[in-house]
Amino acid sequence: MKIALSQLNYHIGNFDNNVEKIIAEIKKAESLGADLVVFAELAVSGYPPRDFLEFRDFVQRCNRSIETIASHCTRVAAIVGTPVFNTHHKGKPLYNTAAFCYAGKVQHYTKKTLLPNYDIFDEYRYFEPNNEFNIIEFKGKKIALTICEDLWNVQDNPLYTINPMDELMKQQPDLMINIAASPFNYKQTETRKEVLFKNASRYKLPLIYVNHVGAQTELLFDGGSLAMDETGEIVRELSYFQEDFDLVDTDNLQKTEKHIQPNSSEIERIHDALVMGVKNYFQKLGFKKAILGLSGGIDSAVTAVIAAKALGAENVYNVLLPSRFSSDHSVNDAISLAKNLSSPYDIINIEKTFNALESTLKPYFKGLPFNVAEENLQARARGVLLMGLSNKFGHILLNTSNKSEAAVGYGTLYGDMNGGLSVLGDVYKTQVFELARFMNRETEIIPENIITKPPSAELRPDQKDSDSLPDYDILDVILYQYIENRKGPEEIVAMGYDKTLVDRILKMVNTNEYKRYQTPPILRISSKAFGMGRRMPIVARYLL
Amino acid sequence: MKIALSQLNYHIGNFDNNVEKIIAEIKKAESLGADLVVFAELAVSGYPPRDFLEFRDFVQRCNRSIETIASHCTRVAAIVGTPVFNTHHKGKPLYNTAAFCYAGKVQHYTKKTLLPNYDIFDEYRYFEPNNEFNIIEFKGKKIALTICEDLWNVQDNPLYTINPMDELMKQQPDLMINIAASPFNYKQTETRKEVLFKNASRYKLPLIYVNHVGAQTELLFDGGSLAMDETGEIVRELSYFQEDFDLVDTDNLQKTEKHIQPNSSEIERIHDALVMGVKNYFQKLGFKKAILGLSGGIDSAVTAVIAAKALGAENVYNVLLPSRFSSDHSVNDAISLAKNLSSPYDIINIEKTFNALESTLKPYFKGLPFNVAEENLQARARGVLLMGLSNKFGHILLNTSNKSEAAVGYGTLYGDMNGGLSVLGDVYKTQVFELARFMNRETEIIPENIITKPPSAELRPDQKDSDSLPDYDILDVILYQYIENRKGPEEIVAMGYDKTLVDRILKMVNTNEYKRYQTPPILRISSKAFGMGRRMPIVARYLL
Repeated sequence: MKIALSQLNYHIGNFDNNVEKIIAEIKKAESLGADLVVFAELAVSGYPPRDFLEFRDFVQRCNRSIETIASHCTRVAAIVGTPVFNTHHKGKPLYNTAAFCYAGKVQHYTKKTLLPNYDIFDEYRYFEPNNEFNIIEFKGKKIALTICEDLWNVQDNPLYTINPMDELMKQQPDLMINIAASPFNYKQTETRKEVLFKNASRYKLPLIYVNHVGAQTELLFDGGSLAMDETGEIVRELSYFQEDFDLVDTDNLQKTEKHIQPNSSEIERIHDALVMGVKNYFQKLGFKKAILGLSGGIDSAVTAVIAAKALGAENVYNVLLPSRFSSDHSVNDAISLAKNLSSPYDIINIEKTFNALESTLKPYFKGLPFNVAEENLQARARGVLLMGLSNKFGHILLNTSNKSEAAVGYGTLYGDMNGGLSVLGDVYKTQVFELARFMNRETEIIPENIITKPPSAELRPDQKDSDSLPDYDILDVILYQYIENRKGPEEIVAMGYDKTLVDRILKMVNTNEYKRYQTPPILRISSKAFGMGRRMPIVARYLL
Repeated sequence: MKIALSQLNYHIGNFDNNVEKIIAEIKKAESLGADLVVFAELAVSGYPPRDFLEFRDFVQRCNRSIETIASHCTRVAAIVGTPVFNTHHKGKPLYNTAAFCYAGKVQHYTKKTLLPNYDIFDEYRYFEPNNEFNIIEFKGKKIALTICEDLWNVQDNPLYTINPMDELMKQQPDLMINIAASPFNYKQTETRKEVLFKNASRYKLPLIYVNHVGAQTELLFDGGSLAMDETGEIVRELSYFQEDFDLVDTDNLQKTEKHIQPNSSEIERIHDALVMGVKNYFQKLGFKKAILGLSGGIDSAVTAVIAAKALGAENVYNVLLPSRFSSDHSVNDAISLAKNLSSPYDIINIEKTFNALESTLKPYFKGLPFNVAEENLQARARGVLLMGLSNKFGHILLNTSNKSEAAVGYGTLYGDMNGGLSVLGDVYKTQVFELARFMNRETEIIPENIITKPPSAELRPDQKDSDSLPDYDILDVILYQYIENRKGPEEIVAMGYDKTLVDRILKMVNTNEYKRYQTPPILRISSKAFGMGRRMPIVARYLL
C-alpha cells in the first residue's frame, strides 16, 4: 500500500488553518498516487488543546473540521487525529481518536488506550481510555492503528496494565500505523526511535509513524516521522524541526531507497529546537519583532543569536542598558555582538531612572544600607524601559534567564525575569556555554570575551555570580539530579557531593518556587522543565 | 464508639509541625476518653503536595511520620491520611491512603478508589486507584472507611464506574468514616453537605467526615467537618475557616446534643475565606507584614480591609502613589480608608520616576503619540516603587486586581499585576462591590465615595473603565458563563446577549492568557479560578 506521511505544524484552535493544510496534503498525496495519507495525533485541534477540550463548542468545531476533511477523501484515504465525544453515559467526556476518512466520510474512529498523565501530559483530565481493539481493513490490508503512547508499553513500563498492540496482534495485522504528538527533549529523539524499533521487531510488522512538528508555546515537537520495515530498520526518516512529506510503498519497504536524517549532537538539537520555538511563538501570535536587553553577558548573547536566526537579524532590537556598575567591556562586547549579527541596537543609560527611584524612595528607606532592594531597582528600571519600548512598537520582549538562575532564584521578578517568552529557561548555564561554542564553530559571532569572562550581574561594584552561587559546573550537576532525576538530598550526597552544599542548593530551589510561578513560559528542551510539567506547591516547607 | 474529629491546618512538607499537631490531638482525644480520633486526607504531608510526591525522599518522610504517629496510638486509635508506595510492579507509584493506627503501629492502610483528576486535582498523576474493599473491625464495630472523592459517586456521576460504598456495604458496616481534602468554593459548602446527606440516608449509616482547614497557597480549605446520624441529619458541624475538635458517641448520635454552625451568606463565606487565605499565606511563609498600593479605588480598598483583618491593621503598609492623572478624591478617599483602618500609610508621588522614564525613552519613541506605553509606564513605576519597599523591609506585596480585570487583561504586567499573592483575582468586580458593602454593614470602613464613584485606572485624563470595557454587570455575567460554566459563544448568545459583545469579551479573555500566565497565585473562591485549575494554551487561535 502506498502511504504518505504528512508531518505538519498545526496551530491550536486555528481550525481553518489546520483544515486547509490537511486538505492540501490530501490533494498532494492523491496526485502522487497514494492510497492513504497519515497525519498526527489531534491534528485538527493542534496539540495540546488543554482545557479548550472542556468547551463543547471547541469539540464541535473539531467534528465539523473532520467532516470537511473527510469530504475531500474520495480517492485517497486519510488518518487524522481528533477528539470526539464519549456518547456512553459513563467515563470522561471525550476520546482521543484517529479518524479513518474515506469515500467522503469518516469510516471509523480508533480510540487511544494509554493516556499519559505525567510531566507535561494531562490526558486523563479529558479522555476516557479505549478498551476495544479492532484492526482496520483497507485495500486488502489489515492495519493496526494506534495513537502515540499506545506503543510505549513495550517491555517493562509499570504505568500500564494493557498493551494495545498485543491485543491487535490477535487479528493478524499486516502493518502498524501510529500517529503521535511526542514532545522533544534532547534525549527523546533516541528514546523514541528505540521504542519504535522494539515494536517493529517484536511484532515483525512494518511501522508508519507520524509526529507533530513545531512549537506550541513551551512544548517543542521535533517531527522525525518515519517508516520502518518489519525488522525495525528505518527506511524513511522525515526532517527534524520542520514540516515534511514523504511517500512509501509498505509492500516493498525493504527494497525502498533509504532516506535517513544526518546524525546531530545534543547541543545542535537544542539549538535547532530553540530557534524553532522562538520562530513559531512569534508566527503563531502574529508578531514579527523581538526586543531584548543585551548585557554583554553570555545569556543575552546566546538569546540574541537564537532570535536573529529565528526572526531575521533585522527584526531583533538589542538594547544595552548600562548603569554605574556596568563595565566598559560589557558595553563593548554587546556592541560587537550586535554588529556581528547586523541587528539594530541602542544604548539607553538607566542612571536617570535609577536615580529617580532611589531619590523617591530615600525618605522611606530610613537610611538602611544599599542592599538587594537597590540591586533590584536597577534590574527593574531595565525591565520597565524594555517593556516601554515593547509596548510602543509592538515587539515581544525575550527573557534571557537560564535554567540555573531560574532554579536558584538568581534573578529579579519584574526586572530581568520579564518577557513574553523565556528562550533559555530550560538550558543550564553550562549548556549555555556549549551553545555559545556551537554558534561560534565556524566564525566568531559571539565575542570570545563574552564566553571567557566570569559571569556577573553587575548590580554592585565588582560583583560576580560566584560571590553568591557555587561554581556552575557543580551547581548544574546537583540541580540536574534534583530537578530532572528527582533525587532527594540523601541520594545526592551519596553520589559524593558535600552535604552543606547540597542542602543549600535544594533549599534555594524550593524557596524560589514563588518566583518561578511568575516567569514567562519557558521553551522546554529537557525531560523536566520549569512550567507545565513541574507542579510544585509555593507555600511549603520541604527541605527548607 | 467514641470518635474525635480533629480538623487541623497542615503545612505542606512541614512534617515536624504536622506530626506534632497530630500527636497533641491524639493525646487530647485520649484524655477525653475517645476510642478513635480521625484526621484529614494526606494530613501527614499537607494537601496538595503536588510533585513533591515524585520524590522518594518526600514519601519516605511521610512513612517515618506515620510510624511516629502510630507509636503514640497506644490506647486510642487514629486514622491519618498519608501517601504510601505501591509495592506491586504495575501501576502508578503511590496510593493515597488512610492509615489506621492502633497498639503502637499501623494496622491497615485503606486506599483511595476514586481519584479526582479535573479542575485543580491531579491525583491520577501520582496515585494508583484502589480496587480491594475491606471494612475495618475495631472494638466490635465494622467501619467503612473511605477517602474524600470515594463518597462522590452517589446518584449519577458519569466520571466513575465504581462506587466504593456499594462494595463496602456487602460487608455490613456499622458506620462510615470519610477523610477529606475538599477545597472551598462559595457554592461547595452546600454541595458537600448534600453529597454527605445522600450517603448517610442511602446507606442508613452514621457518617463521620473530617476535612482539612486552612489555605495552601491558592487552595482554601473551609473545614466544616461533621457527624451525621443514619438519617442524614447533622449532629455536629465543626467550625469553618478555623481549626476545631469535637467528640461524638456514634452509638448515640440521635440522642446527642446538636451543635450546628450558623448559616452564612455566600459573600460572608468569600470574605472569611479570603481573610484565611491571606493569613495562612503569610504565616506559612514566615512573613508578618504586607504592603499594597492604595489607589482610592474599590479593589485596593477591599484588599486593604482583608489584609488588615488577616494580619492586623498595623502590619499592612498602604502606599498611595499618585501621578498627574490622580484625582484629589482618590488620594483623600485612600487616606480616609487607611485612617479608618488605623493602618500605616505613605504618599509617594510617582512623577519623578515617570518623568525619568519618559525622558529616557523620548529619543527612542520617535515622536509617537502618548498611548498604552505611557499608561503602562505609570503602572510599572508604581510596581517598582512598591517592590523596592517590599524588598527593603521584607513585606510581601499584595496584588489588588479583580477577576473581571484579570479575565479581560485590563491590567499592566510588571505594574499593577505585581504581587506575591492575588487576593481578589477570583472575585468578579460586581462581587468586589458586594464585599465592600458587606464590610461596611455595621460601620463605614470603606468610604462610601470609593464604592459609588465610577471605576477608573487614572492613567490618562478623565479615564473611566467604561471607556474600554462593557458595564461590569454585563461583563461579569458573560465571563461567568464562559469561565465557570464553559459555555461557547453560540450558547452565550442563545441566552440573550449581543453577539458582537460576546465575541469581543471571549476574544479578550483568550488573547490575555499570556498575561495571566505571569500573575501571582490567586486565592480560589469559585468553582473555576485562574491558576492551577484552568489550564489554557497561550499560543492558540480559538475565538480570536
